[in-house]
Amino acid sequence: MATVEKGELTLLGEQTVVLAIHGGAGVERASMTPESETKARAAMELALRHGYEQLKQGRSAKDAVTAAITVLEDDPLFNAGRGAVFTHDGRNELDASLMDGATLAAGAVAGVHKVKNPILLARAVMEHSQHVMLAGDGAEQFAAEQGVSLVDPSYFRTERRWQELQRALQEENHQAQATREAIKHFGTVGAVARDSQGRLAAGTSTGGMTNKRYGRVGDSPVIGAGTYADVDCAVSGTGWGEYYLRVSAAREICLRMGRLGESATQAGRAVIEDEIPGMGGDGGAIVLGANGEVALPFNTEGMYRGWIGADGVPHVAIYATDALTLPTASR
Amino acid sequence: MATVEKGELTLLGEQTVVLAIHGGAGVERASMTPESETKARAAMELALRHGYEQLKQGRSAKDAVTAAITVLEDDPLFNAGRGAVFTHDGRNELDASLMDGATLAAGAVAGVHKVKNPILLARAVMEHSQHVMLAGDGAEQFAAEQGVSLVDPSYFRTERRWQELQRALQEENHQAQATREAIKHFGTVGAVARDSQGRLAAGTSTGGMTNKRYGRVGDSPVIGAGTYADVDCAVSGTGWGEYYLRVSAAREICLRMGRLGESATQAGRAVIEDEIPGMGGDGGAIVLGANGEVALPFNTEGMYRGWIGADGVPHVAIYATDALTLPTASR
Repeated sequence: MATVEKGELTLLGEQTVVLAIHGGAGVERASMTPESETKARAAMELALRHGYEQLKQGRSAKDAVTAAITVLEDDPLFNAGRGAVFTHDGRNELDASLMDGATLAAGAVAGVHKVKNPILLARAVMEHSQHVMLAGDGAEQFAAEQGVSLVDPSYFRTERRWQELQRALQEENHQAQATREAIKHFGTVGAVARDSQGRLAAGTSTGGMTNKRYGRVGDSPVIGAGTYADVDCAVSGTGWGEYYLRVSAAREICLRMGRLGESATQAGRAVIEDEIPGMGGDGGAIVLGANGEVALPFNTEGMYRGWIGADGVPHVAIYATDALTLPTASR
Repeated sequence: MATVEKGELTLLGEQTVVLAIHGGAGVERASMTPESETKARAAMELALRHGYEQLKQGRSAKDAVTAAITVLEDDPLFNAGRGAVFTHDGRNELDASLMDGATLAAGAVAGVHKVKNPILLARAVMEHSQHVMLAGDGAEQFAAEQGVSLVDPSYFRTERRWQELQRALQEENHQAQATREAIKHFGTVGAVARDSQGRLAAGTSTGGMTNKRYGRVGDSPVIGAGTYADVDCAVSGTGWGEYYLRVSAAREICLRMGRLGESATQAGRAVIEDEIPGMGGDGGAIVLGANGEVALPFNTEGMYRGWIGADGVPHVAIYATDALTLPTASR
């Protein structure tokens, strides 16, 4: 981006701020009702408005990402924060990560059980520790010291997710079915933003997979796999985490944009629509370029997704067949 | 690589198998004695011979990597397995990862306290679970179920590392010194190999940083950061993990080789000698190309490092000033 005077920068900023979110790939029409669709759309619009408010006030991309993800974590509809899926032993185990593309600062937490908004702990790790990634009890000790809000683990519990675990446990003797069930419920949430100074940020938060065990860590808390941001691009992924880990999906998308000159659409398509399904995985991602280009690739029947631009009007969609106009990239 | 008949393949294999290892960057001459140098060289030669034995018998690159790392984990000299550094609360907390470049299969474990050889657990995760990364108690439960050897946590304790923790704790009021101390002791171990069929693999194992706390996870158990392998390249890193995480160092090296056509030397230099020190980090890596090219870049005073080729003669070095001839790449 060319250097501009302060006055121009503000004007440019108002024209080019953008925020995109996802509430998870793997949405299946058969499991939805008109009521659940309406609720999901309303929740995404609320998250977009909260994030946009930060951008409109001239705050940073990471503020917008944090604000949007906090809304999605608080909504029991999504598999993050309240409403997270259950592990094999009946707990909610949460992961999150955040990255500031302007500075390459990053924070991530894995396997926490009492942190109300894991994205806020990821941010505290980024801003108030010397580390990038903290896990388990140690991460919660850090949360307590930082004054990050802790709750009783029962806060995360929803009856719907509990019943999903019971079904998964019943089906466990039928390995193939159990695997499908687990895959279906990967409704991770995430956000990417570009602020009025052209800075990018990305964040992701999840409860992981239903019936997960052995302290499984997926891609969401792994910088480079589920989340990445630099000066060229910001990415948050949602899908079968093992595949995202094996290709460092978010980092590959950003390297393709930064080093190979691919657009957000090209890079997102190459990794999400070709490489990962080619290996047998599935899922989606939200991709934002430095020029404001947004791509929302996925290879499942649906992905909760949306974006909001300078005019403050939220745009959301659920299924692959939904029409969703994307913002025009600008320089 | 061109397709060849079986007879030729064996011949080619004998000519082109290669294994490289590191025992950690950050070696400082002032803290070494002639005796400790001799011990380190002997340990590296032993690890190289054990790994080479696998390759000579026609076994896979991942077998060679696993064998070499097991030797380094068992030696109390290195910060991995026995002899690992201590956490703030006086425990040894171990991380490891392994990746098979031919299949992109990967396994990783973070924060285990009782697994004798964490690299063997990483391998069990890769081969016997549906997951890539397991952490903490859950990872140890998986180890027990898989019959991976468990030991009493006291097995890992060495007096030298304990005294290092005591010094770090004493210096903690002097933040700058404590930070330097922690950085100095990042002697992670790792290996990369190319087998007679041209398959690549990479692995890394570590005890992390002295005086680490809050369940800190570094780059070593993170696929894409401390370890990566694909058809183009195999990488294991050792250094200030937070920086390796923030650039997905191993994945970036492999993408540079695979997509930009850089050599192992070029890609290793770009990330290890330019990008990471440019951000304020330090460390090293071992990089192996599909053509057998080996690069051992680092930006510290020394890095325990070595390689062994088709003739079975180990070559090892410690300081940047040590002469070390590298194998010639071949097609």
